[in-house]
Amino acid sequence: MKWNRSLPSGTKDKLFREANGAYQLEQQVNDIVKKRGYQRIDTPVIEFEDVFYSEEKNEKEFYRFFDKQGRLLVLRPDMTMPIGRVIATTGIQPPLKLSYSGKVFRSNDDMLGEQNELTQAGIELIGYSSLKAEVECLSCAVEILEELEIPNFHFELGHAQIFRLIVTSLGLDETAKTELQTYFNHKSLTDLQRFVAIYPSELDAFICAIPRLFGEVEEVLPVAKTLLPNESKIIPVIDELEKLMSVIKSYHETISLTVDLGLITLMDYYTGVLFNGYADLVPDIFLRGGRYDHLAEQFDHPMIPAVGLGINLDTLVTLQYQLNKLAALKPPTTLVHSSLAQLGRAESLVKEYPDYQLSLFETLEEAIEYAEKWQYRQVIEVLENKTHVTKVGDQN
Amino acid sequence: MKWNRSLPSGTKDKLFREANGAYQLEQQVNDIVKKRGYQRIDTPVIEFEDVFYSEEKNEKEFYRFFDKQGRLLVLRPDMTMPIGRVIATTGIQPPLKLSYSGKVFRSNDDMLGEQNELTQAGIELIGYSSLKAEVECLSCAVEILEELEIPNFHFELGHAQIFRLIVTSLGLDETAKTELQTYFNHKSLTDLQRFVAIYPSELDAFICAIPRLFGEVEEVLPVAKTLLPNESKIIPVIDELEKLMSVIKSYHETISLTVDLGLITLMDYYTGVLFNGYADLVPDIFLRGGRYDHLAEQFDHPMIPAVGLGINLDTLVTLQYQLNKLAALKPPTTLVHSSLAQLGRAESLVKEYPDYQLSLFETLEEAIEYAEKWQYRQVIEVLENKTHVTKVGDQN
Repeated sequence: MKWNRSLPSGTKDKLFREANGAYQLEQQVNDIVKKRGYQRIDTPVIEFEDVFYSEEKNEKEFYRFFDKQGRLLVLRPDMTMPIGRVIATTGIQPPLKLSYSGKVFRSNDDMLGEQNELTQAGIELIGYSSLKAEVECLSCAVEILEELEIPNFHFELGHAQIFRLIVTSLGLDETAKTELQTYFNHKSLTDLQRFVAIYPSELDAFICAIPRLFGEVEEVLPVAKTLLPNESKIIPVIDELEKLMSVIKSYHETISLTVDLGLITLMDYYTGVLFNGYADLVPDIFLRGGRYDHLAEQFDHPMIPAVGLGINLDTLVTLQYQLNKLAALKPPTTLVHSSLAQLGRAESLVKEYPDYQLSLFETLEEAIEYAEKWQYRQVIEVLENKTHVTKVGDQN
Repeated sequence: MKWNRSLPSGTKDKLFREANGAYQLEQQVNDIVKKRGYQRIDTPVIEFEDVFYSEEKNEKEFYRFFDKQGRLLVLRPDMTMPIGRVIATTGIQPPLKLSYSGKVFRSNDDMLGEQNELTQAGIELIGYSSLKAEVECLSCAVEILEELEIPNFHFELGHAQIFRLIVTSLGLDETAKTELQTYFNHKSLTDLQRFVAIYPSELDAFICAIPRLFGEVEEVLPVAKTLLPNESKIIPVIDELEKLMSVIKSYHETISLTVDLGLITLMDYYTGVLFNGYADLVPDIFLRGGRYDHLAEQFDHPMIPAVGLGINLDTLVTLQYQLNKLAALKPPTTLVHSSLAQLGRAESLVKEYPDYQLSLFETLEEAIEYAEKWQYRQVIEVLENKTHVTKVGDQN
């Protein structure tokens, strides 16, 4: 048989402690959101491509294939769009607090070394227009990250309307918009100065300040407002961010929270507050979320306000693994051996003690050899009328 | 936006109680196997196609697509082959007791109404040649099905060597083999009589009896042996089945267990005892397993004895849902409302009582309306220095 021993790029096997820890970590997250009143939703891994259709989206990242009728299918790159599909098409009534966990897929280039198959967990608050929903999202994230003992996590907040209002106000076409997006992303002062020279407006000072409008709320937001015309629609947006931050800080006093007014969304569906989560030793953003009031409209449904966030669990598993914090497996101490005829009695004995394990070896010699290799303390042989104990390892 | 509201064939959304119940059922199964000493393994959903390559396999059922380098990928149709890949290529040392749960994919024809995306859980005992491994597999299945309260489950056992030994003994080519396979599957006496007329041998009586060689062990196996020549290699195979059945019956006295000597495997890798699991109200086989000693060889690795089984969890979820046995969600009784500024205090109150839920509505009126609609008992409003309770529903 000719076959390739490697795995597809961006995928990996998880074994033993890592697999067990990953499963437990996902359970912990799901237990927390359940306790907070979220209801689980499971959508398929395979969806029609249209579900993820969006004019602005970079579609190169999808895994695409055909069904037997020649219809285009994709592996879901995201969980929020399918949930939007469900809300918009099933007639279930918002408000709803939904939660999910499962795999999402992105066909990245080989060279990038990114995960192409990753486990995400998240929540979606559907039908809530109040800023309380943003607070709830972040409080839920705080509870999860504290429970998982993620060291020094940090949230950065932004707002999708800032970039949108600039684009509308300057009347930018698609090309200019993409250009500005890049300069925002790269915090490129020189490029922004060149840009405002071509598209001059009352927002020039604000736009050119974007590369440094990030950091502590108390420092950034007052400065930002002085750079804007009094009647600018961006001011209420900044006020909203300020209000949200002050509420969150009032009852999560110790958490680290900064703002970045130049934050650009990866997903088009965001319409309001944006949040990114970072942590020590984690190279990328591992948590993303925000408000996306227009998602339902993409599915021909009237507007439904919504806020949500998603967490990349694989990143947290890798972190916990590195930190040796991933749930350890308790090694068994005792191997219980018997003949085939006595196996039922041996199993009954094993069931009484959590650190006993059943031997499935043909002979006692094999069982003892295995017990010695894996540092068991003893092998108990179950015979017809008695048991016989063999101590193994250093203690002999 | 033009898009198709339906889901790809053979996929479905799970919501609320069904989603929650499915997740809990999977957890229950994973908890049992963990307690029995199995170690979790997680392999990717996406694999290179070669992993599932097999000359005899019906490859039409795969979802296929290409990566950016043009290499052929598939969505795993099965969990056992990837585990074989891991064992054969990573150098981890058998014996091992491995467990898994996750999705597998099959691109069935639309018309069949089959699941194309399904959740499977299972175990693999790698490196155990003893019949104890088969017993352990079945005992583990019994524990799972009893714990899940699956009504009237039933196991049917067979042996992959019976068909293989007939094929070898008659020297059948690929076409004749496929033909015989079909007659076995259909229990077609007339076809088998025609077949042995073309391929006459000492096994004629046995082959023609196959359509009725199923049922109670005590009735079927003795009859089967009288139909075989004394020196037939099929006799020790039947003896093995007999021994296994007697051990299982000796300590799972009440379980329903029959034998079918005409059982044909779906997967080529099976080499020994086969088991199928059935239950009342479940239209298909929901559990399959058996011995597959030659799997590692498909990955250029020396032979490793192995036994395993897989359970279709979606089928059990559907069954439990129908029977109203799926874990129910406890509805909250109390909605706790506050202003944005008091949200932290409201959340603290909610955390004290498991049946309290936080209101994320802007106004108290909205909270009360929602509480009435969903039959809460009361709405508590958290104010700066006091709380105010509004009773809702019938009790007023």
